[in-house]
Amino acid sequence: MTNQETLARTIFDDIAALSRDGEGITRESYGEGEERAMQAIEAHAATLGFACERDRFQNLWMRLPNDARTAPPVVIGSHMDSVPQGGNYDGLAGVVAGMLVLDRLRDAPQSAPPVRVMALRGEESAWYGKAYTGSLALLGKLPASALALHHRSGQGTLGEAMARSGVDVDAVARGEALIAPGDIAAWLELHIEQGPVMVARGWASTVVTGIRGNIRHNRVRCIGETGHSGAVPRWLRHDAVLATADLLARMDEHWRVLLQMGMDLVMTTGICTTPVRSHAVSVIPGELEFSFEVRSQDADTLERFHALMQEECQAVGKARGVRFEFDERIRSAPARMDEAWIARLEAAALARGQAVERLPSGAGHDAAVFANAGIPAAMVFVRNAHGSHNVHEAMDCADFLDGVDLLHRALVAA
Amino acid sequence: MTNQETLARTIFDDIAALSRDGEGITRESYGEGEERAMQAIEAHAATLGFACERDRFQNLWMRLPNDARTAPPVVIGSHMDSVPQGGNYDGLAGVVAGMLVLDRLRDAPQSAPPVRVMALRGEESAWYGKAYTGSLALLGKLPASALALHHRSGQGTLGEAMARSGVDVDAVARGEALIAPGDIAAWLELHIEQGPVMVARGWASTVVTGIRGNIRHNRVRCIGETGHSGAVPRWLRHDAVLATADLLARMDEHWRVLLQMGMDLVMTTGICTTPVRSHAVSVIPGELEFSFEVRSQDADTLERFHALMQEECQAVGKARGVRFEFDERIRSAPARMDEAWIARLEAAALARGQAVERLPSGAGHDAAVFANAGIPAAMVFVRNAHGSHNVHEAMDCADFLDGVDLLHRALVAA
Repeated sequence: MTNQETLARTIFDDIAALSRDGEGITRESYGEGEERAMQAIEAHAATLGFACERDRFQNLWMRLPNDARTAPPVVIGSHMDSVPQGGNYDGLAGVVAGMLVLDRLRDAPQSAPPVRVMALRGEESAWYGKAYTGSLALLGKLPASALALHHRSGQGTLGEAMARSGVDVDAVARGEALIAPGDIAAWLELHIEQGPVMVARGWASTVVTGIRGNIRHNRVRCIGETGHSGAVPRWLRHDAVLATADLLARMDEHWRVLLQMGMDLVMTTGICTTPVRSHAVSVIPGELEFSFEVRSQDADTLERFHALMQEECQAVGKARGVRFEFDERIRSAPARMDEAWIARLEAAALARGQAVERLPSGAGHDAAVFANAGIPAAMVFVRNAHGSHNVHEAMDCADFLDGVDLLHRALVAA
Repeated sequence: MTNQETLARTIFDDIAALSRDGEGITRESYGEGEERAMQAIEAHAATLGFACERDRFQNLWMRLPNDARTAPPVVIGSHMDSVPQGGNYDGLAGVVAGMLVLDRLRDAPQSAPPVRVMALRGEESAWYGKAYTGSLALLGKLPASALALHHRSGQGTLGEAMARSGVDVDAVARGEALIAPGDIAAWLELHIEQGPVMVARGWASTVVTGIRGNIRHNRVRCIGETGHSGAVPRWLRHDAVLATADLLARMDEHWRVLLQMGMDLVMTTGICTTPVRSHAVSVIPGELEFSFEVRSQDADTLERFHALMQEECQAVGKARGVRFEFDERIRSAPARMDEAWIARLEAAALARGQAVERLPSGAGHDAAVFANAGIPAAMVFVRNAHGSHNVHEAMDCADFLDGVDLLHRALVAA
């Protein structure tokens, strides 16, 4: 076994140097930075003596050459791309983690189930407005229409970029799956946490329970009635701002209570604005637009909370003489992580004398695509300060190795 | 006595025809429409046999020539100007009401105290950004600096327009008062209601208790912390939208309770917006700006409610890890109407078999300037649909005559 810390630092630093973009890291999906990083991974894999191949969609697979078992393997992996001006660890950490696990298993591959390490392409939606293109294509689930999506610059399409990368775009277009769900025993993904919980709690690594889905309205309009702010008394007002404040305060209180009752839930109104064209301090606001998003690991919780919100809109509307208009509902399904793998990861942590606490993933991951295709999936989160998708992403190597150790121990126990 | 309805309709229609501007009515302060309307009033006054004169600030005074008493008169009046594309009755109704009262008194002036009718200029702030310029100048209270205020078009100043209208601008600039508070026994003003209460209640005319003052912040900033909407749990959020919703819901509830406890209060947040430059549905909002205005007839209520609001900002800030930043506080003093005149007007209504209910004025009026100068002031409101400052203003002539009758009866009782 190579010195794991040295190996990790070498690969991370090497790939960071290849994808530096000012202060940040840029590895465009099916673009130059991603391809350079794939080649660097291939070079390191060769040095480590791993067998390496790319599939027809240009994802990279690695394995130990001395492991000839043909049973469906456990695949450890994540994605190689990054957002523009992002950080080095979002995605890459999961690929390197897989390589470190392979390295740990090199002298005794039979101590664990067969393992493959995978470096996926095209996870970030920042480039073509669609996330998980690599894993969806792999499973034959990328809609052909996605190939026509335009690059964020307006120049070129996803299909064109895939073709330039050497992807068999015709196969993607006909929805050809390179693997069937039964071909993989499990998908394991290590990822940096993109929220602040682990820093706040003081956890180095932990086990992910599920990936939150969401229901979203980009635009809800509260419509009341404008009026003179001095001359209209309370009982004749239809104030869109106070009605929405009432609504959001009710939902916020429901949220607090439901958390107390053990549900997994976050609620966000990121946009909230009276119409700028008619802004006036002394006019009762007749209109307010806001966004509404609820996320949960549980599909039923999502549906019920969305229904509760609509019910409260009715109640507030009736009480205050306003109405709420909704745009199209956008839904993204949650994904549950596999209970057996969660148990194995937790047992592994306990075995080294440390009880980990479970955490939901609020952001989406390729693991959700595998889980929703029926493949047992599990994730390990590693502590990371300052969130992700920015240049201030900060993962300690010690925390990363702690997470790798968790994966290795769980595999050995499988 | 002339047929009052015919007289009222004739004057209203005549002046509407002179100041028609598309569908609306435009009588610019110290401008052409206002001057034409003043001349029309002078012509009608002459026909009615009233003595007429303009003071050095080009306000118009009318009286019965057969009333030679020299005691300080009761002055009935209002303003002649309108907002751009406004209605015909906002201001003008109060001047015509005074003329109808004079007409009612022509055969027995001694039945009431001496009466003068006044047509003021320059009440609307829409033209030069400052309200009550006519009444303030009359009382020597228009700051010289106001003469430099620019017209809404950017072209020309208030001082220039006043000079063109024949106003002795030098006298205005040195703060010369044309009348001292003791020169007037009372100021009575009939005005259309600018809110919806009287239509909703079914009152033709009513007595005004006071003119609401206000305390206002044009901009309060709630500052929290942005974060990933999926990955940050509730206990680590500092959500500026939910914090402000909490604040406004608390203030709204206090408002409800304080009304129940008999206080006069309206509260408005006309502007409420997350920063447009960083709008995102999936980001916890780190900032929200909003306006806050409280109006009351009672200065103490204004101060206390403003202090309560700041206290709640502290409490919400502490509970949610956000802070609220306030811009400069803007304060406008309330004005109380004279209790003796309120009692006379109510008694007059009762005497004709109709109990009127009091109403506060949410909008400002010249009556507030007179009241705050120490002159007993009272107002009668006349029912008006669709608010004011717009072309849909709608006053019934019968309601107007009802209000005129109230003024006349109260005068006779004085």
